[in-house]
Amino acid sequence: MKQDSASTPTQSPGTSGYGLLDAISSPADVRALRLDQLPELCADIRRFLIDHLSVNPGHFASSMGAVDIIVALHYVYDTPSDHLFWDVGHQAYAHKILTGRRDAFVNQRKKGGISGFPSPLESEHDTFVTGHASNSISAALGRAIADRNTPGKENARTVAVIGDASISGGLAFEGLNNVANNPNNLLIILNDNEMSIDANVGALHAYLSEMSTSAGYNKWRSKLYNAFRRKGVVTEEGKGRIQRFANSVKSLVSGKQNIFEGLNIRYFGPFDGHDVIKIVKILNDIKDMQTPRLLHLHTIKGKGYRPAEENPAKWHAPGLFDPETGEKICKDSKDSPLPWQEVFGRTLVELARKDDRVMGVTAAMLSGTSISRMMEEFPHRTFDVGISEGHAVTFSAGLATGGKRPFTAIYSTFLQRAYDNIVNDVCIQGLPVTFCIDRAGLVGEDGVTHHGLLDIAYLRCIPNMRIAVPADEETLRNLMFTSLHSDGPMAIRYPRGKATVKDWQTEMKEIPIGKGRVAAVEEGADIAVLTVGPLLHEARKALNVLKDKGVKADLYDMIWVKPLDTDLLRHIASTHRAIVTVEDGVAAGGFGSAVTEWCRDHHADIDIRILGAPDRWVAHGSVAELKHDCGYDAEGIASAVMELAAVES
Amino acid sequence: MKQDSASTPTQSPGTSGYGLLDAISSPADVRALRLDQLPELCADIRRFLIDHLSVNPGHFASSMGAVDIIVALHYVYDTPSDHLFWDVGHQAYAHKILTGRRDAFVNQRKKGGISGFPSPLESEHDTFVTGHASNSISAALGRAIADRNTPGKENARTVAVIGDASISGGLAFEGLNNVANNPNNLLIILNDNEMSIDANVGALHAYLSEMSTSAGYNKWRSKLYNAFRRKGVVTEEGKGRIQRFANSVKSLVSGKQNIFEGLNIRYFGPFDGHDVIKIVKILNDIKDMQTPRLLHLHTIKGKGYRPAEENPAKWHAPGLFDPETGEKICKDSKDSPLPWQEVFGRTLVELARKDDRVMGVTAAMLSGTSISRMMEEFPHRTFDVGISEGHAVTFSAGLATGGKRPFTAIYSTFLQRAYDNIVNDVCIQGLPVTFCIDRAGLVGEDGVTHHGLLDIAYLRCIPNMRIAVPADEETLRNLMFTSLHSDGPMAIRYPRGKATVKDWQTEMKEIPIGKGRVAAVEEGADIAVLTVGPLLHEARKALNVLKDKGVKADLYDMIWVKPLDTDLLRHIASTHRAIVTVEDGVAAGGFGSAVTEWCRDHHADIDIRILGAPDRWVAHGSVAELKHDCGYDAEGIASAVMELAAVES
Repeated sequence: MKQDSASTPTQSPGTSGYGLLDAISSPADVRALRLDQLPELCADIRRFLIDHLSVNPGHFASSMGAVDIIVALHYVYDTPSDHLFWDVGHQAYAHKILTGRRDAFVNQRKKGGISGFPSPLESEHDTFVTGHASNSISAALGRAIADRNTPGKENARTVAVIGDASISGGLAFEGLNNVANNPNNLLIILNDNEMSIDANVGALHAYLSEMSTSAGYNKWRSKLYNAFRRKGVVTEEGKGRIQRFANSVKSLVSGKQNIFEGLNIRYFGPFDGHDVIKIVKILNDIKDMQTPRLLHLHTIKGKGYRPAEENPAKWHAPGLFDPETGEKICKDSKDSPLPWQEVFGRTLVELARKDDRVMGVTAAMLSGTSISRMMEEFPHRTFDVGISEGHAVTFSAGLATGGKRPFTAIYSTFLQRAYDNIVNDVCIQGLPVTFCIDRAGLVGEDGVTHHGLLDIAYLRCIPNMRIAVPADEETLRNLMFTSLHSDGPMAIRYPRGKATVKDWQTEMKEIPIGKGRVAAVEEGADIAVLTVGPLLHEARKALNVLKDKGVKADLYDMIWVKPLDTDLLRHIASTHRAIVTVEDGVAAGGFGSAVTEWCRDHHADIDIRILGAPDRWVAHGSVAELKHDCGYDAEGIASAVMELAAVES
Repeated sequence: MKQDSASTPTQSPGTSGYGLLDAISSPADVRALRLDQLPELCADIRRFLIDHLSVNPGHFASSMGAVDIIVALHYVYDTPSDHLFWDVGHQAYAHKILTGRRDAFVNQRKKGGISGFPSPLESEHDTFVTGHASNSISAALGRAIADRNTPGKENARTVAVIGDASISGGLAFEGLNNVANNPNNLLIILNDNEMSIDANVGALHAYLSEMSTSAGYNKWRSKLYNAFRRKGVVTEEGKGRIQRFANSVKSLVSGKQNIFEGLNIRYFGPFDGHDVIKIVKILNDIKDMQTPRLLHLHTIKGKGYRPAEENPAKWHAPGLFDPETGEKICKDSKDSPLPWQEVFGRTLVELARKDDRVMGVTAAMLSGTSISRMMEEFPHRTFDVGISEGHAVTFSAGLATGGKRPFTAIYSTFLQRAYDNIVNDVCIQGLPVTFCIDRAGLVGEDGVTHHGLLDIAYLRCIPNMRIAVPADEETLRNLMFTSLHSDGPMAIRYPRGKATVKDWQTEMKEIPIGKGRVAAVEEGADIAVLTVGPLLHEARKALNVLKDKGVKADLYDMIWVKPLDTDLLRHIASTHRAIVTVEDGVAAGGFGSAVTEWCRDHHADIDIRILGAPDRWVAHGSVAELKHDCGYDAEGIASAVMELAAVES
C-alpha cells in the first residue's frame, strides 16, 4: 500500500524519553560516552527513528542501517574539524540527530523544517549537499586535498560514506580512479547493504556480495587482519605490500579479484557494520593513515526493525506506518486516480504485448517508475542498470540502432546525469528512444536536489528532440503510442503523484506531433492561458474563479513544448492581446520562453506573462505549498490573468 | 609550433599508389587477402595516412596506432552484419579507408566531406557516432542485446574498441558494470597505448600499465595462454574458471588485481596490438564465444611514424607537416594574437602566483586548455583527472568547500558530461567554482559532436549560475580576476582559436558583475545590436559596411548572459525600436532568448531578432564557413539589421 508522503502526519511522539540520546546535543556528547554504551545509544536512535518516521515520513530503511556506522564515526572523528560526506544523504538521519537537530527532526522534510539530506546551510557538521548518489568520493577527495594544502588544516580528516548502490555510478568510479593520484588521507567507508532502493544490480554488486559471503575468504581475512593487528603493522605505511598480498591470497581463495586494490586504494574488510564497538576499534586503527583506503562494512537495510529487514525495498520510504505492527497507514481512497507512474508502467506493458520492439530501461528505479510492471511480464526485455543514468541512455541508444524501441524511464532530476548521452548518443543520431521523464516538476518533501524543474530548458535547446507534457492519463498513453509509431527521440514528462481520472484505460491512438488543443473558449476573451501538463487543471480552476468575477480568458492545452504548435500560436496571437504561459519547470529557457521566442520572431505584438519556477532554488515542502510559492497554482494563475486584464481597463 | 587546422591544405597526394590498399574498396577485399599479406596492407594504410594527414590535417597519432587492430577486425568480422563501435572515433580512420571511403578521405573534415568520426549517415559500416569518449561499451552492449533478441540476427557479433583513456570515464565503467548482467556476446577490445591526448592519468592507467610491463606476469600469461590454446580450451565455456584462476595467479605474480575479472568479464591479454597476424588468430579463437570478454592489446600511439612515436601528445592532431622530416608547417605570422586558451593559461598562472587559493582542474585536456602552464609552475595545485568531467566538477566543488578557488577548464561540449555535477554539487551549494568553458561555440573541423553550442542554454536555467562571455583577452582576464574576488559559481566561455589583440597582458581589475558596455553609438540609430563574446568584432564589421550604405545601428557588448544588464537593456529598449542579438550558440534558450524574456516581462514594445545557431545539427567545416551558414558572421548580422531597417522605411 503505497503512501503519499505528503499526507498530514499524526501526533509527534516528542523528542525525549530516548535514554542516552536525551543527553546528546552535539557530537562531543557522543564522545563523552563509554565505548560500551554505544550499542545502547544505537538502539535509542533506532527507537527515535521508528517513532518519528512512522508519523512524519522519510527515508527509513537506509537510515536504520547506517546508525552504528554514524555513531562510531562521531565517536572517533571530530566534526566540523573533520569532514563527513554521506552518499546518499538520506542514510544520514542519525547524523542529523546527533549534531544538534534532534528537536528539529520533528519537522524534517516539511516546509520551513530541516531537509531530508545533509545541508551546510543547516549545520556546520554537514560538509556537502548529497541528494544525488555517487558524488561523495569526488567531493571528499577535493576536501581532503584542499585541507592538505591549507596551513593549519593539514591534520583534518575526511571520510566519505558511500552505499554499495551509489558506488556503482560512473561518478563514483571516476572518483575511485583519481583517489590515488595525489597524496591524501581520504577514508572511504563502503556501507554495503546489498541493496539499492530496489535490489542492487551489476557486476560490482555481485562482486561485493561474493566477497562478503565466501567462507574460505572470511577465514583468511580474519586470520590475516588479526595477525596484522597483533603485530601492529596495520597502520604502518611500509607494510602496504602485506595487505596487498593478503588481498591477492583472498582473490585466490574466493576466486574473485580485489577491484579497490587494483585502483591503488588499500582495502579493509568486510566487517560487520552493526558491531559499533568493533567499528570504533577499526576506525581508531586506520583513522590516521596517510594513504587513501577503503573500509568495507556489511549492513542490513532496515536493521533493528523486523518488517523493514524482511522487505527493505518496500521500506525505503514507507510513508506513515504503525510502529507496533509495521502496518502501513494508507489514507487514500480506493477510488482515487492511479499515480502517473502506474499508468505509465501498465501502458508500457500493453505496448510491449503488441510490439516486440518495445524494451524497458531504468536506472535503479524499477518500482519508483513502475517499470517493474514490465519486468514482471517481460523480464528479458526490461533492464534495470542500477545507478547509471548515462549508461541507461547510451545503452538505450544501442538498442535503438538494432531496431528496438526503448522506453527509458528516469526521474527528471537524475536524467541530468545523462545529458551528454541524450545529446550525443541519441539526438545527434536521431534514434527512437522515448524518454519517460518521471517526477518532472516539483516533487515536494525531497526538496532542492530532487525537483525536476530543469528538464524542459535543458532539453529544448537540443536539435531533434521532441518534448511533450500530458495533462491527463489518456494523453500520456497516446503520447507513448505516438512515440512508438514515429521516428526519432521523444521526451514525455509527467509529475510525481496521482494523475487525474479514474477511468484511464482508454484505447490508445496516435496524436498529431506538435499539435495542441483548445481546452476552453469564452466569448469575447482577449487573454489566453497556455499550459503544458497537469497544471491545465489548476488553470481551469483559476478561470472558473475569474469567471465569477467577470474576467474572461481562453485556455489552451499546448501538450508540446517542442515542436510548438505554431499554427495554434498564430491563431492565439491574432485573436488575443495577452498570453499567460504556465509550466511546472523553470521559467528561464522553458516552455514560456519558447512561446516568447516564437512570438518575437513572428512580430506578434502580444503581451506575454511566463509562470514557472523562479530563478532561485526551491526547498522542500508539500507540492501544493511549493506550487503556491512558485506562483503557478490556481491562485497564482488567476492573479496573473487579473493583472493583465487590469492593464487594459 | 601549433597549427590552425583550418589552414588551406596543400596539394592532395591522390589515393592510388598505395600497394595492396589500391585494390581495397570494401571489407570483403580485405578478407580476400592472404593472412601473410596483412602486415603489408597495414604499412600501405600508414603510408596513406601520413601522406594525407600531412596536407589535410586530422587526428594522427591515435589513427596510426589503431591500424593493425582495424585490419585484423575487418579480416575476421563481417560488417555491416557484425558491428564495430569505435571509442573514440578518431582512431578509426583506417576503418573509413577500408570501408569505401578512401577517395572521400581527401576531403575528410572539410565542409561537405566525410566526418572525422564514424557516422551511420556516411556508411552502413559505421554503427554509431562516437565523438565523445567512453560511450562504446554501453552502446555496443545495447546493440548486442538487441541483436540477440531479434529473429535472424542472433548470430551477429558486436565489438567495442576502446582506448585506455576512454575506459577511465565513468560511463565506460557503468557499461563494464552492466556487461555481465544479461546474456550477450560482446567483445571489448582495449586499445591500450598508455596515452590519453596528453599523458594518461588515474589508478586504472597505472594498473593497466603495470599489468603490461611486469616481466614475471608476462611469462605466466604467455605460458598459460599457449597451454590453453594447445589444449583447445580457450573457447570452451566451462573452462572459464581456468582463465580466472590464471588471472588470480597473475595477480599474485604482478601484485595487481584483475579488475575486469572482478566485473565478471573474461580477460585476455595483454598482447601486441601491432602484430596483425597474431591478433587475427586470437580474434578467430574468441570471436564466437557467447560470453562478454575483454581483449587487452598494447599499442604505440603514432606507430609507424617515428616523430609521432617519440612525441605522441604533440602528434595527437598535429596540423600540416612535412611527411619526410616530420616538421610541422606553421602558416601563422609570429605577430598574430595568441589563442584564447593560451591567454587563459598564462592568466591563471598570474592569479595563482598572487593567491594560494587558486587551483587548476582539467579533464584530460592539459595542453588543449593550456592549463599545462599552471601544471608547470604549480604541479601540486593543478589536477588533470583524465576523461572524467563529472569528477572534475565535483572534485572542484570539494576543493571549494575547503576554501580553495578552483578554475575548472573543460571544453564546452565535454562539460555536458558534468551537467548534474554543475547543478547539484556546485550551483545548489553556491560554491565558488569558475568554469572556464573552452571551445565554446563553433569549433570547425571536428564537427557535430564537438561544437560547443549548447552551454549558454543549458547553464542559463540553473539558479546561482553566472555566465560571462568576453569579447577580448582583457575582458577574459578581468572576468577571471572578478570571479576570484567574488562569491559563487561563474562560467566564462571562450572559443577555439586566436583571440583578437597582440598586447593582451594588461593589468587585471574587477569588472562589475552583470554590466555590459556600449561598443559603438551612432547619432540617430534606432536599431541596437547586442552581442556576447568575440562576435562583437563580426558585428563591428557588419555595422561598418552598413554605415557606408546609410544604415545606422548602435552596438553593445553585453558581456553577461546572466545576470543580464537590465539597466542597460532598459535604456536600449527605451531608445531603440529594434534589437538584434548575436551569440555563438543555439538560439533556442540562449542569450537572445534571455533578452527576449526580459523585454516581454517588462512590456518593452520592441522588435527582437535573435541570431544564433539554428535548431538543427551543424556539421563540420571551417569556423568561418559554419558561422556564415548559421547566419551570424558579419554578412548575416548585416542582413538582419538591414531587414529590420527595411521594416520601418
